[in-house]
Amino acid sequence: MLNILITNDDGIRAKGLRTLIEIARPFGNITVVAPQDPMSGMGHAITVNRPLRMNLLKKEENYQEYVCVGTPVDCVKMGLRVVLENQSVDLILSGINHGSNASTNVIYSGTMGAAIEGAMEGKKSVGFSLLDYHPDADFSQASDFIRKIIADVIETPIPRGVALNVNIPKIKKEDIKGIKMCTQADAYWIEEYIPRKDPWGGDYYWLAGDFLGENVGQDSDIQALKENYISIVPVQYDLTAFDAIEKLKHFNS
Amino acid sequence: MLNILITNDDGIRAKGLRTLIEIARPFGNITVVAPQDPMSGMGHAITVNRPLRMNLLKKEENYQEYVCVGTPVDCVKMGLRVVLENQSVDLILSGINHGSNASTNVIYSGTMGAAIEGAMEGKKSVGFSLLDYHPDADFSQASDFIRKIIADVIETPIPRGVALNVNIPKIKKEDIKGIKMCTQADAYWIEEYIPRKDPWGGDYYWLAGDFLGENVGQDSDIQALKENYISIVPVQYDLTAFDAIEKLKHFNS
Repeated sequence: MLNILITNDDGIRAKGLRTLIEIARPFGNITVVAPQDPMSGMGHAITVNRPLRMNLLKKEENYQEYVCVGTPVDCVKMGLRVVLENQSVDLILSGINHGSNASTNVIYSGTMGAAIEGAMEGKKSVGFSLLDYHPDADFSQASDFIRKIIADVIETPIPRGVALNVNIPKIKKEDIKGIKMCTQADAYWIEEYIPRKDPWGGDYYWLAGDFLGENVGQDSDIQALKENYISIVPVQYDLTAFDAIEKLKHFNS
Repeated sequence: MLNILITNDDGIRAKGLRTLIEIARPFGNITVVAPQDPMSGMGHAITVNRPLRMNLLKKEENYQEYVCVGTPVDCVKMGLRVVLENQSVDLILSGINHGSNASTNVIYSGTMGAAIEGAMEGKKSVGFSLLDYHPDADFSQASDFIRKIIADVIETPIPRGVALNVNIPKIKKEDIKGIKMCTQADAYWIEEYIPRKDPWGGDYYWLAGDFLGENVGQDSDIQALKENYISIVPVQYDLTAFDAIEKLKHFNS
């Protein structure tokens, strides 16, 4: 049986995680290690200045579930090193995220941080996101597609070091046109910080903003989602801007 | 005069930040927005579930310094949106980090998270790291090289969206052979979690490990540092694994 490690960034109680567990269970032995608290925006963060805590919540045949006081990447590392010590892991799944991780959101995403960490460990790794931020989002429309993608990932070789960033539009199942392999759109956030006063007169700020996805490219994830496709971007952890090396060779000395 | 924004991930009190500020001051108007606490390992994390706090610590001619209760990327965003609202920013500097951000460390690095955020904003951005984790590390040997690199970055066009990841070996100034543009080595950590008991019998874990950099490639940063060069890797935020798109096109449906 396959060994499958599951995590997310919305925390152990999130509906998206529960949906992913339910979809994944028929595929193998499931180990869940998920963050105690919501970890949206944690990207590839790890905990180095504080110790980590982890507790077993549930253990039954082919299923175990741990909660970890840490980031999504901590959950992957603790899952591989502590929980599944010396066992081979065949697949790492992350999500289902409540909200989009398309385009540059991937950089800030704890869901994709966990999946990329899995790829760095040489494991097949997939992050799933539904374009619906609501805590009570309806994941049922997406379930069949997620099941199909998991089955395909299990049966197919995935290039080493590559994780899949899967985003699913918030539309009815019958309106989804299909699945498209895409590039990461170069869209961005128009951000603002909303200033507030606490009851003692102190200033604080909430990060808010809108995502701007204009002129994103025909083969990009944002474009595919606009056209009612599920987007899959293969992502890598080599950040080298190879083209720039030649342009910047005057730095050599 | 140039507007320069400075941050780091070791926190506002770190010696590496103080050294970078000192080196940068002759180049322009300096705005420092640095994290209150050490933020090593925070990668590209942003704070979304809690509000952010920021306080002015010092203001004098051509210099202002703020402390932010947030991550290095929060500091860049708050610096650009709140502190320097409506002003053009010419350069973003991050560091000097206490410890290496070469190879895959770049993914976990708060120092480089801040620099990459700067590049996403279309700003010239550089992260500096010295290969010495000690809080009282000797940055004086590296200062002349950092000054030269900052001057070169100011005078040279840098491709849009590219940040520079500069790592400096822990050796005497006269033993540094030069500066080399490099690729990101594919080295990795051999990690372990050290289990401990708290005074009440509860389990906790410390993340520890060694960095393994074997067979890293002749043009990589790890190799350059081994040969006593300062390494510069141009890094980008487009994570698309372009080669994998063709290989995985059977996912299309």
